[in-house]
Order: sequence, then structure tokens, then C-alpha cells
Amino acid sequence: MNKVQLNPVGWMSQLSQIEVSQLQDTANSQLFQMFKNCCLAVLNSGVDEDNFEVLFAPYHDFDIRLVRRERGVKIELINPPEVAFVDGELIKGVHEHIFSVLRDLLFMGNKYAFLHQSAPADNESITDMVFDMLRHSNALEGNDNLNTVVCWGGHSINQTEYKYTKEVGYQLGLRKINICTGCGPGAMKGPMKGATIGHAKQRYHEGRYIGISEPSIIAAEPPNAIVNELIVMPDIEKRLEAFVRLSHGIIIFPGGVGTAEELLYILGILMNDKNAQQPFPLILTGPAGSEQYFEAIDAFVGATLGKEAQEKYQIIVDDPQDVARVMTAGLEKVREFRVAMGDAFSFNWSLKIEDAFQHPFIPTHETMSQLALHHDQSPAELAVVLRQAFSGIVAGNVKAEGIKQIKERGPFVLSGEQSLMQRIDTLLESFVAQHRMKLPGTAYEPCYVVK
Amino acid sequence: MNKVQLNPVGWMSQLSQIEVSQLQDTANSQLFQMFKNCCLAVLNSGVDEDNFEVLFAPYHDFDIRLVRRERGVKIELINPPEVAFVDGELIKGVHEHIFSVLRDLLFMGNKYAFLHQSAPADNESITDMVFDMLRHSNALEGNDNLNTVVCWGGHSINQTEYKYTKEVGYQLGLRKINICTGCGPGAMKGPMKGATIGHAKQRYHEGRYIGISEPSIIAAEPPNAIVNELIVMPDIEKRLEAFVRLSHGIIIFPGGVGTAEELLYILGILMNDKNAQQPFPLILTGPAGSEQYFEAIDAFVGATLGKEAQEKYQIIVDDPQDVARVMTAGLEKVREFRVAMGDAFSFNWSLKIEDAFQHPFIPTHETMSQLALHHDQSPAELAVVLRQAFSGIVAGNVKAEGIKQIKERGPFVLSGEQSLMQRIDTLLESFVAQHRMKLPGTAYEPCYVVK
Amino acid sequence: MNKVQLNPVGWMSQLSQIEVSQLQDTANSQLFQMFKNCCLAVLNSGVDEDNFEVLFAPYHDFDIRLVRRERGVKIELINPPEVAFVDGELIKGVHEHIFSVLRDLLFMGNKYAFLHQSAPADNESITDMVFDMLRHSNALEGNDNLNTVVCWGGHSINQTEYKYTKEVGYQLGLRKINICTGCGPGAMKGPMKGATIGHAKQRYHEGRYIGISEPSIIAAEPPNAIVNELIVMPDIEKRLEAFVRLSHGIIIFPGGVGTAEELLYILGILMNDKNAQQPFPLILTGPAGSEQYFEAIDAFVGATLGKEAQEKYQIIVDDPQDVARVMTAGLEKVREFRVAMGDAFSFNWSLKIEDAFQHPFIPTHETMSQLALHHDQSPAELAVVLRQAFSGIVAGNVKAEGIKQIKERGPFVLSGEQSLMQRIDTLLESFVAQHRMKLPGTAYEPCYVVK
Amino acid sequence: MNKVQLNPVGWMSQLSQIEVSQLQDTANSQLFQMFKNCCLAVLNSGVDEDNFEVLFAPYHDFDIRLVRRERGVKIELINPPEVAFVDGELIKGVHEHIFSVLRDLLFMGNKYAFLHQSAPADNESITDMVFDMLRHSNALEGNDNLNTVVCWGGHSINQTEYKYTKEVGYQLGLRKINICTGCGPGAMKGPMKGATIGHAKQRYHEGRYIGISEPSIIAAEPPNAIVNELIVMPDIEKRLEAFVRLSHGIIIFPGGVGTAEELLYILGILMNDKNAQQPFPLILTGPAGSEQYFEAIDAFVGATLGKEAQEKYQIIVDDPQDVARVMTAGLEKVREFRVAMGDAFSFNWSLKIEDAFQHPFIPTHETMSQLALHHDQSPAELAVVLRQAFSGIVAGNVKAEGIKQIKERGPFVLSGEQSLMQRIDTLLESFVAQHRMKLPGTAYEPCYVVK
Repeated sequence: MNKVQLNPVGWMSQLSQIEVSQLQDTANSQLFQMFKNCCLAVLNSGVDEDNFEVLFAPYHDFDIRLVRRERGVKIELINPPEVAFVDGELIKGVHEHIFSVLRDLLFMGNKYAFLHQSAPADNESITDMVFDMLRHSNALEGNDNLNTVVCWGGHSINQTEYKYTKEVGYQLGLRKINICTGCGPGAMKGPMKGATIGHAKQRYHEGRYIGISEPSIIAAEPPNAIVNELIVMPDIEKRLEAFVRLSHGIIIFPGGVGTAEELLYILGILMNDKNAQQPFPLILTGPAGSEQYFEAIDAFVGATLGKEAQEKYQIIVDDPQDVARVMTAGLEKVREFRVAMGDAFSFNWSLKIEDAFQHPFIPTHETMSQLALHHDQSPAELAVVLRQAFSGIVAGNVKAEGIKQIKERGPFVLSGEQSLMQRIDTLLESFVAQHRMKLPGTAYEPCYVVK
Repeated sequence: MNKVQLNPVGWMSQLSQIEVSQLQDTANSQLFQMFKNCCLAVLNSGVDEDNFEVLFAPYHDFDIRLVRRERGVKIELINPPEVAFVDGELIKGVHEHIFSVLRDLLFMGNKYAFLHQSAPADNESITDMVFDMLRHSNALEGNDNLNTVVCWGGHSINQTEYKYTKEVGYQLGLRKINICTGCGPGAMKGPMKGATIGHAKQRYHEGRYIGISEPSIIAAEPPNAIVNELIVMPDIEKRLEAFVRLSHGIIIFPGGVGTAEELLYILGILMNDKNAQQPFPLILTGPAGSEQYFEAIDAFVGATLGKEAQEKYQIIVDDPQDVARVMTAGLEKVREFRVAMGDAFSFNWSLKIEDAFQHPFIPTHETMSQLALHHDQSPAELAVVLRQAFSGIVAGNVKAEGIKQIKERGPFVLSGEQSLMQRIDTLLESFVAQHRMKLPGTAYEPCYVVK
Repeated sequence: MNKVQLNPVGWMSQLSQIEVSQLQDTANSQLFQMFKNCCLAVLNSGVDEDNFEVLFAPYHDFDIRLVRRERGVKIELINPPEVAFVDGELIKGVHEHIFSVLRDLLFMGNKYAFLHQSAPADNESITDMVFDMLRHSNALEGNDNLNTVVCWGGHSINQTEYKYTKEVGYQLGLRKINICTGCGPGAMKGPMKGATIGHAKQRYHEGRYIGISEPSIIAAEPPNAIVNELIVMPDIEKRLEAFVRLSHGIIIFPGGVGTAEELLYILGILMNDKNAQQPFPLILTGPAGSEQYFEAIDAFVGATLGKEAQEKYQIIVDDPQDVARVMTAGLEKVREFRVAMGDAFSFNWSLKIEDAFQHPFIPTHETMSQLALHHDQSPAELAVVLRQAFSGIVAGNVKAEGIKQIKERGPFVLSGEQSLMQRIDTLLESFVAQHRMKLPGTAYEPCYVVK
Repeated sequence: MNKVQLNPVGWMSQLSQIEVSQLQDTANSQLFQMFKNCCLAVLNSGVDEDNFEVLFAPYHDFDIRLVRRERGVKIELINPPEVAFVDGELIKGVHEHIFSVLRDLLFMGNKYAFLHQSAPADNESITDMVFDMLRHSNALEGNDNLNTVVCWGGHSINQTEYKYTKEVGYQLGLRKINICTGCGPGAMKGPMKGATIGHAKQRYHEGRYIGISEPSIIAAEPPNAIVNELIVMPDIEKRLEAFVRLSHGIIIFPGGVGTAEELLYILGILMNDKNAQQPFPLILTGPAGSEQYFEAIDAFVGATLGKEAQEKYQIIVDDPQDVARVMTAGLEKVREFRVAMGDAFSFNWSLKIEDAFQHPFIPTHETMSQLALHHDQSPAELAVVLRQAFSGIVAGNVKAEGIKQIKERGPFVLSGEQSLMQRIDTLLESFVAQHRMKLPGTAYEPCYVVK
């Protein structure tokens, strides 16, 4: 049995005795199982595989223990994957990621009772918790330069698209912009990779490559090699909130349902009247050859949420330099706005996010079938529902809980207003056809039926 | 009306909206009044005056407000003392101290309900809170080198003694030892001043000059010019616990009742059987000419707590270099012990401090008169009672609440076993005779009667 | 006319008035023309083109001027290539490279009279000058960790080989090894690129990517995007000396004549009896599929320099991790040796380099035809001559002066002992067949005839 | 025999083999003897004694050797004074000072042939050499903030004056001004000491305390404990030039002939028409009680150099805050001027210093007796001669060479125009009466006769 003990780093190296006890009390909890899985995912970082069962299969004898010391708490890895080690020593970045997972999942998970009824539920408390988690992860310090751009997009994109995301990242890097993505390969890795070269050329040594993940997806999309700050939010809703409050602008690359979910989320927020004054640079971009993707998405948004929603973003095709320039100009407007309002630079407190976007949507066959998929509601309300629909499909595709349900009870059934269902079906079909649902090499078996 | 707004620094620059609200809710509380007084004391730092009424008199129109901003919370000073400003700008060190007071008194005060029944009361919780406060003040980071030495001693000492404390500080500084004292002039300032020169000569740039104070005494002993980390603990008991758990060794210079209280506190702890294995360098030292002081103290300890207590410390007269060498050797033993035990370097978790030393003793005419001043108890128990007696006299001398009581009801009355009372009286007499009770220039009016 | 003025950085920002005058005096010199060309090459960095005429063609109206200021000297670029600018501002890395060229070519060029009879010529003076140039470029500071590895290899390698150099670089980076190459694409870029990822994963922030070039080749192989320290040595001999004295180990990837020249150079030195005790890790490596390359080289070395020469290196095929481990072990031996000898860590003073390796070989039709290509000399002497032969072919391939001669007078003629000529011919043929002479896409016209 | 070997630091840790050889060649030179004496002085730093014979007496068996290593050059101290060591280890600041002396005296001394006919002699070369020495000592880097103020004044001043220099230093420090003095106690130490407190309060961590000395005086005025940058210029003329070109303003405290020499030097320069536009803050200041000193000096300047000279400075009595404010305002003008002219911030190239101020004046009985002490010349010319006269008296007072001459041949004789001689005599008498010639406790025996 191969055992490795890790000394705590960062916040985890300064725990009180009571905090250490509380951590240890979790050892048999459901939370701890989640923690263990996330650690295994992190230890596999760099391995290209989005099927968590395949990924985890060789490590059935992997285990993890918290070891109490007067000095704090150590983590003991038992039979960890070799890929994370260099000549017997854990790669430092992975070491840090492991303690980020401990911090976010166990420590903060305890503090906020992630898995319990007592978890924060009202609007203000949820936002405070998101803030507190980002603060604990040191993500706010150093976020004062209004230069954090979130890049969303698929983990499964073709080589042309991947190269394009690198070029956009390079142009952003040349302009000293930091990158935040959802962790993982594809459009989550390319912009970071490009930015490192841009940063290096500009001798910008504070380059941040922030990955914000969640427990249920980290196995499918472990942090890539470049992520130097890992944050694990408890669920997709808080993760999305972290993205939009931490960042100063968003770029969306081609992707699948996950990307569609993200776009609907930010559109739903920006369409809120209370956010009407907020400048928020939002760019959809891809290389020549990916035009249809954006046409499909744009048409879908136009048909479902209307022209007002379409005005919230700008589509730029095949021009990385232009993307970077438009973003830079947009960030300047963000600066002016925040200065004028006296708003914080490092966390967007004043952006209004409605309850419906904050509360976890748990996809089941029941909740999925009951989604109010029709136009008898405001566009903002429809955005909420559409996001939930896509969120459920993501779960059915790659999240353990979702996959389990599909296995047991067959695909989710989505139904509603005929014309709307038609549009949804068309969009999803295009994702399947473009291989955006899963990493290439695996035939995609839809986890949903549109009726 | 002169107004100055201060931007938050340190931890206070990253507060959540809820935390800011809570801070503002304190605006009319008793805690806030305490906060205001501490700020005024800090703004007067460097002024030599231990009578807080005299000190505060010119500033009756001083006020302070918390101003809420999206970015966090600003402090607005109204009619602040000019001495803290350079060409209209607040001195940066004072600026930091103000926010240290905000952090420790209001923010942590709220968190731990300092002034309420709900404040932590059990042994473990109190220690955790002391840890949490030191952690929040960043005092633990950088405390890993086992080179923090607490210097105790009087604020009112003569020039020879003051010079001597500087020389000891210089020798400590040459050995890259950091200094922690109780804030204020005299033996709290000299070692820091000497250490800065020693540190400079050794090109030691991480020099720490930590001042640990408490609300009720900070006015009489405001942080001197050199203190670069200010921590305000809620009461003398937590302050003493912070001293002994944060530091790696203690040096005691000549002083008055406060110093005697401190000596009794550490002796009481070190005499605890559970701490028998703990190496803890403890040196009593002063210049030639101050021998009688130590003879008196040593005799008192011998007569009251016994020979075992005397063995816990070493007396060194007029040899700064020897003090530094003995301390250095002692710190090495501390290192060996902590390594062997796997104990933390930055916080002495394993030192046992009994409840009786942790719970606040509130000196009143009643509690003072009821002190069990006799030998029908273990030396450790007697140490507890003696510390309380001296603590009460300190309050009667310089703390607002104590002074008020003495004004209203006359001196505290101490009574008990005859021989013991004799010894106490002798010791106190010697302090008065040596002008150790108050800053020189003021005639000392005893706040106690020994019967 | 587009003009851009650049403020001096690094050493060039602190010149005396006399030094500035001397720099300005060069304005019409041959040295200045060289300086101008190097700057143009640096401004084109990242452009893939090894034909300097094609590269420079669009910039016939490019010019450069030194502008004297009380504060020092500014550089004025006239009509510079746009590729070096981001939104009108010169990329910082390029800015630094421009001043590195000014420092090495003009300032040091003046100091050591590069182009004159008075240039240092004796053994000791040449080494001192190499040292002085590395010292001025700040390459010695930070070179104390015995972790600088030189990577040699072709600028024109295939994708498999390029990926392999990246993987080796990645494994070196994981072990906190810094990379030094000759600037340019291919095997000069891959290891740096890989190392950046390895360094990032290990949170190693001091990553050095040193490029050592020379004026006559910088146009064909401008510093790639990752080079963060550029040094321009006056000629190939001093450049090679800089490589071996600065580095602590060498890895050789597949390449063409240039790479062969480099291998012969280091072998010639290591075969010197005076260097017999020096541990010097030297690894030849490439991916599966490149075995023939190493077989050819190894056979050539065996046949010309003998078995002793072959023992100086280790060939590792297709195992990046093993390369990194063997190198790490080798560096440890270097450490032991230098400690034992009291040798400097940052500059290998004690390595003996014979005059014949230090003095510039100027390839002309005459010098090339007179090379003593036969076995009637010691292996070390033969190594000198072989290196010169290959050096001449490199010049004929990519250096302006060489190309000009070939254009005017036809190919260089190499002749000598029959069996040796055979071997040379075979080796060169294999380079041509493997497209290692020039970047792909251009048909290679040999600049030599072997008789 | 007690031996200690010191590793090289700073520039001296990166010497070429040839440079090391050259250093070693000095081992028996006159320069080396000077070096040895300076080292002994540095090792005695902190000892209050301005009679070098008394100072050196206990160390007749002190010696020093340069030890060649492949890595560079080590210094071996034989029987060094114990005062410089802490528990057997040399204090780091002293260690650095020793290598500063090696750098300035031996290394630069070699480079510029200090003691030979070939030493730089023309105006431009001398300035370049001063620049080069400051550059090598890293004094120019970090001198870009226009906040370096030179403080001149006596080493032998009374307690009131000493305290005053500390208070001025404190006020300067609060305004983030760095201090440069001539090394030694009194007015050379006070401002530094005060500034450290001011810097500490403002959390200004880049505080520079630059001491510029010369070989012939460093024994009498060794660098005090606070000096963190030591520079040793070869003679008083180059030292004075270093002061005025490095600094951005000058404050003059009470002092003796040395201080008078310095005042005459700067006045002579500022009266030069070519410097008419140069803003140069120059303040004479002292505490209440020292007014007569300034009255005497001011009267002397008025009578000898005229009203124009008096307008170059401002006298401020007993107001440290005002001194700091006037200086701050003056520095702002310096900034405006340098920006407008495009002048360097770190070195005042454009200040014109005439040959007569640059060339060493060697005081002998002959040169002293031949000084043209009369009014038949321009005020600027007279300033030159007066400076030389005072310079000679300083030599006779504290410099070894001067003392030796006086011992052998009696006092220097100064003669000239009757009224002028009268004024000189009066001024010197006042210095004697105020004990400004030598440290107190020693009766002053004049080294001059005024006829």
C-alpha cells in the first residue's frame, strides 16, 4: 500500500483545534465521499477523459485520510495515481489543488452545511457565502485591476476551434488580462494556454488562471495544467454566480449544452431591469467555419428571449485581435461605471441576481418533465426555465447523479409549447451533430427526449 | 469641523455586505464607545501621558463614524488630534492601527459577542477564539521561526533601566529575534527600539514589533511609534493568553504591579504539572542598580509560591549579551521540543492554561475583598489569587472603570493571612517607593489598603 | 513615417555621458548596421521564416536611431514591423530584447572592439570577455542553482520531433530546470515551451528561458516568444563558449549541420585531458522514429573521433522522463564536483577550452578548401577541423555573409582523406534527405561540394 | 591567531579571473594599506572615538588577506575587533561594509589608478568616474524618487543639537525622504536615526541611509550603525561631488571646519552662472540655542562671498517640521526642473562643477601658506580658496597625513588680506569655543596659525 502525507498549504495550514475536529468529524459523511472523488479527479488532472467511470476505474483502491497534528491537519493519500508525481513527489500545483478542494468542500462545506437544510437559502445569504468562499480562496485579493475575463465554451471542440481559443487567449494575455474558466480541456484550457504566452511576452508575472469547478463535474473536467487557482463551488448555481461576480467580462466560445446553459444564465441576469445600467462586456466568438454554431445559438436566443437579449452580446467571427480590443474597451467602461458608483472592483456586489437563478435546480425525471417550457411568461422567466432544462441535460451527460438516473429510468422527457420544443430540439440536434456533447471517440447516446 | 475619511486596509478591506451591516449595527453600542476611545488613544500614540482623562480632555469634540460603501467600510474621523497627521495626511502606521482596532474590537467583538453572556466561556472555546483573533490579525503567519520574545516590564521606569531595555533589545535584534510587548512607553518601547537597530545592522528586514493591548488600558499605554502590528484583545486574561501562546520566550524587566501580575500569571501556568515538559525560557533582568527590585520579587515568589516557582526563571543582572545568549539557547530547546512533539511553531496549542487563568476577573470592592489570600491552597491556586489581586490594583491605577470605582468608594481593601498580607504590603510599598505605579511627575495615591 | 521612441531598460538605463557619446559615435559604423539588422530580426520575432532576405524585404524603409538624453540614450524605431506592437505599444519582451541587442552589440562591441584587430585574442582574455558579457546581461545572477540546461537541435524538425522536445522540456520543467537554447524555432523553442508548463505546475516562478544568439544568425533564428533573456555574442565561437560555461548540462535533439557543429565542439572540449575529471551531463535524444538520426551521428563520431568520444554522451530514445532523470542525476554530480573543487556555480571557469576552439573561423572558399580533413592528427584536433567544416556549411546555408559568397563563387569545396570525405558526405546527405538544412517548403540547394 | 573568512557579497561576488588577479596584485601596495585601515575602521563602527591612533592601538596585530577562490575572492580577517561579531559571526551590515570598501578602494582604485598620475584628471572624466563609482555601488538604482537629502554637520555636537538632528530626520522620514551623510556620529547619525522612526511609522520599507566617506577620514568617522549603503570615494573632492550629484537637496546642521568647507563648496557651485537655473534646496538649521552658530557663519559668508551667496540658502531655527516642509517643497521644484529639462533623476549630470572644485587639494605647509586669501578675485574664486583653507584644517585635525605633518613641522600658517584673515580667525575661534573641532573630552590644540 502506497501512502503519501501532504502538509497543509494556504488557509488550511492555519486551522484551530476546533476547526480540525470538525473536519475530522466529516470523515464518514457524504461530503467526505464527494471530497475524495474530487481529490481523485484533481490527481488525474491532465488526463483527457470525460467519462468519470473510466477515469476512476483503475483507482478502486484509492483512499484518503485526514491526519490530525498539533500543527494542523495533514492529508494522507493511499494508492494515488502516479501521474501526479514527479520522482515520488507530488507536483506542487496538484498539492495546492488538493488543499483547495479540502478548503472549499470540507471546510466551507461544513461552515455552510452544503448538504443540509440549514444551508443558506435567502438571496443575500447566498451571495455572502459566494463572496466568503472567494475571499477564503484568495481570489479577491489581486482582483482589483478589472482584468479578469471568464471564458466559457465546450470541453469537446475541434482542433480549429481549440487553436482559435488559444489565439484569443494570446491576444488577451498581451493586454494583461487574466483568464477564468470552468476547469477542464478544450475551451477551458485554450485561452489559458494562449494567455501564458501573451503574459510571458509582456513580462506580466501576476498572470492568474482561475478554474471554478463544482463537485459533480470536476471528475469529467479536472483542472488543466495551467490552472493556478482552483475554486470548487458547491453547485452549478453558486459556481455561475461566482463567475459573474468575480469577472469583469465574459467571452463565449463554441460549446454544447453546458455553454448554452451559461449563456442563458448571463442573459437572464443582464435582461433584469435592475442591471440595465451595468456595462458587462459579453462576446460570442469562434473561428471561420464555426459561423453556423453562432447562427444557431443567436437564432435560438432571438426566437426565445427576443431582440433585447440579442443586444446584450456581440458576435465576432475569426478575429482574435478584435475580440481582445472590444473586450479591453468594454473593461474600460466597467471601470468607469464602478468608479462612478463607488462599487468594489474585486466583486460585483451590485449586480442583481434573482432567486430563481440562485436556488439549486435538482434535475430528476420529475423536475425535468415539469419545466414550464412556454412563452406565457416574461423572457427573463423563460431564460430561467431554459437554463434549467439545459442544466439537466448536462447532468444527464456527465454528472454521476444524472447518469445514474438515466441508467435507471431512461432519458429525461422535456415537453411544452410545440414551437419552442421544436427550437430546442433543433439546437440540441446541432450540438450532437457537431460532437459537442462528449469528447470525440465515443458515440453520443442522448439523455433526453424532446416531445 | 474637520473630517477625514480613511480607506480600509488589511482584512477590513474585504468585508461582505452582511459583515458591513453588522459593523454598522454597533454604531450606538457600548462596544462602539470603547472602539472610539481606543481610536483616540491610537491617534495620540507617541504622546507621553498615562492619565487618560488628561489625554482625552482636549478632544471632547472628537467623533468617529463608519461609512458604508459598496467597496466596504470607511472610517470617518471627526476632529482628530493633529499629532497623527503629516501635512494633512494620516501617518500610515496609525492608519493601520485604527483598522486593527476596528478589526479586533468591532468585527471580532461582534463575532464573539465580547460584551455578552454568549461570549465563549469554556476552556477550549476561549483558546480557539484567542487563536482566531491572532490569525485574523496575521500574527501567526511569519511566526514560524520561533523567534518571538515577549518583553514585560513597567511603563514607568528610570533612564538607566530604559537604556538597559534598549540594550537588551539591541542584543536580541542582532540575533534576529522579534519583539512583542504590551504597547506603550518604558519597558514596552525600549526593547523594540533597540531591536530595530540590531535588525538594521543584520539587514533583517522582517522585523516584527508586535503590540498586544486591551481596550481598558490602551488609552494609558497607546502603541508606541515602532509597533508595526497592533492587536487588541478584549480583556487582560485573553491578552495574557495571547502573549504566552504566541511567543517563544519571555523577558521580564523591572516594573510595577502590572509586571508582577504578568510574572504570577506565567509562573502559575509553568507550575502546572501538565506543562512540566514544556521548555519555556523566562528571564528576569535589569541593569546594575536595579538588583533590589529583583531581590524583592524573588523573595516574594519564594515566600508565596515556593522554590519550585523560583526555578522557572533565571535572573540576570546587567548583562544584555548574556540575556540574549541565554534566550537564544532557550529558543533552541523550544524548537527541539516542538519538533519532537509535532507541535505548531506559530501558536503554542499544547500549553495547558487552567480555567482560573482564562476567566475574566472583574475587580470590584467586593471581589477584591473576597480574594482568598492565604496559604491553605496549592501554590498554583495561590498564584491565581495573587494575580487577581495585582490585576485589581492595576485597574485601580490606570483603567477607567477601576479609577471610577476608587473615586466613588475609596480604595480596594485586601485582607487575608497575616504573614502573606505583610509580604504583599512590602512588595507594593517598594513599587511606590521606586515610582513604578504611575509616570513620574505625579504623586501616587494608593488605590488599595492592605489589612 | 512612423516613429517610436523607446526608453532604455536594464543596464542601458544607467550610462555615463562618455558611454553615451561612444554609443553615438558608432552611428555610421559597420557595427551599427549589424545592430540595425539584429533589431529588425528581434522585431520580427515569432515570424516563421529563415530566409533573411524574404524576412527583411518588406522593411526596406526600416531605420533606427540613437537619441541622446541627459537621462541616457533612447532608441528611435522608424517604420518598425507592426507585428511587434499591441495597440500601438511595443511588446515589453521585444522592448527588452532590443536593449539587449544594444547592450551586447554596440556597448560591449565598443568595449571589446568586436570588429577590430584590438579585440581580445588570447585565451584568458576571451574567456574573461565571455564572462563579462554574461555578467552584464545579468545571466550569472540566478545561475547559482546548477539547473541551467542547454538544448541544442535543429530549427527545422518535424512535428513528432517538435512535440518530443516539448515533452522533454516539460519533464525538465517539472524538475525546476531552466532552459537555454540558441534562439529560434524548432528544437530551440519546444523545450522552452514544455518547460513553461512544467514550471507552472510546480509553481516555479523563476523560470529562465535564455536565448544565446549571434549577429549573423539572429535574422534566420530570431528569439522565440518565450525567451526572457536574450544574449547576443559576437561570433559562433564565443557563443559556443557561453553555452558551455554558463550551462550545467546539455541535451542534443535531432538537427542539421549546426547541431553537428555543436556536438563536435563539446566533444572536442570534453576529450581534452584537462577536462577529464569534469562531470558534464550530455544527452542525445529524440522520439521513436528518429533513431536513424542518432545512429548516423553516433556512427560518424565513432568513425572519426573514436570510442572515447562516444563515451562522453548517452543516447536515449523516446523517453522524456528518463532524459530528465538522467540529467537530474548528472547535475547532482556537477554539484558535488564544484563543491569539492570550490568552483563557481554560475560560470564554469575551470573547463579548459583550447585556443583552436576559441578563435573565430571565418569561412571562405579558401579557408574551407584548406581544412585539414584527415586522420593524421589527434581526435581532438580532428574535432576542431570538423567543427569548422560544419560551421562553414551553416554559414553558407543561413548567414548573410556566407550566402553572398556562395552566390558569387559557387559552393564551398571540401576535400581531404577519402574515407573521411565519404563519411562526411553520407552524413550531410542524410541531413538533406531529412529536410534538416532549411525550413520545409524550400528546396535545398547545397552550398558545398564534397570531393 | 584568530582568523575569519568572509564570502564576497554584492558586486564583489562576480569577479572575473583577471579582476581577481588584479586585486591580488595590490596586496603589497600603498592602496592595500589604505584598504586595511578602512576595514579596521569599519570593524570598529559604533565605537565613539575620533582619534584614529587611540582607536587602532589595540589592534596592532590586525591583518587582512585576499584569498583567491575559483568562485571569486574571499577576505580573511586576522585578529579582528570583537565588537563587530555576534556569537562569533560578523554582523551582516559590517560584512557588507567591508566588501564596499574592497569594491571602492581596491577594485575601483585599480580601475582608476587612484594613486597614480594616470588617474582621471579632466573635468568630464572625473565626473564620469564619480558616476561609475556610484553606479557600481548600486546607489543610482532606487535614486529615482528625488527624495535623497544630504545632511551635513559636525560629528561633535552637543546633546540639544543631536536631539534636534534626530527630530529633523524624523520629520524627513515621515515624508519618505532618504538620508545621505558623511558617515560617523553626531549630525551624521542623528538624521538617520530619526528617519528610521519616521520611515517605520509610514511603513516605508525602502529607507536608504547612505554614508559617503573617504579613506583618510573613515577611521575618525566610521559608518554608524544605521548606514545601510557605504560608499568610499578616493578623496574629499570626489566625495563632495558625489554628495551634490547624488542628492536632491542639502541640510546643514551646526558643525566645525568640515561643515564650513562643505558649505563653501556648495555655495561656490551654486554661484556659478551656469547653475543659475538649477533649483537646489539648501537649508541651514539648528535648535534654539544654536542661533549664534548660524549668525557667525552667515556673517562670514556675507562678508566674504556677498549677498548673492547668502540668497542660496535659507536659515531655519528650531523648527524641524518647517525644515521638512521647505525641503519637500524644494524637492518638488527639483522634480519640475528635471522633468522640464529631461534631466536624469538619479544623478545630477547638468550641474556644472568647475575644475578648481574637482582637483584634489593636498594640504601641506607650502600649499596652505600659498592660498590666495584676498578679495582681488570673484566670490566664486574666493569660495574655492576658502574651501581649501578649511579642508587643510580638517586634515590637520583628524586625517592621519595632516596630523603627521603638524607633528613634524608645527601648525599650518594661513596668511593674506588683513580683514579677511580677521574674519577667518573669528570664525575658527568660535568653532574652538563651541567644542566643534574634536569630540568632547579632549583639549583642542589648533593645527593652524592665522596671521
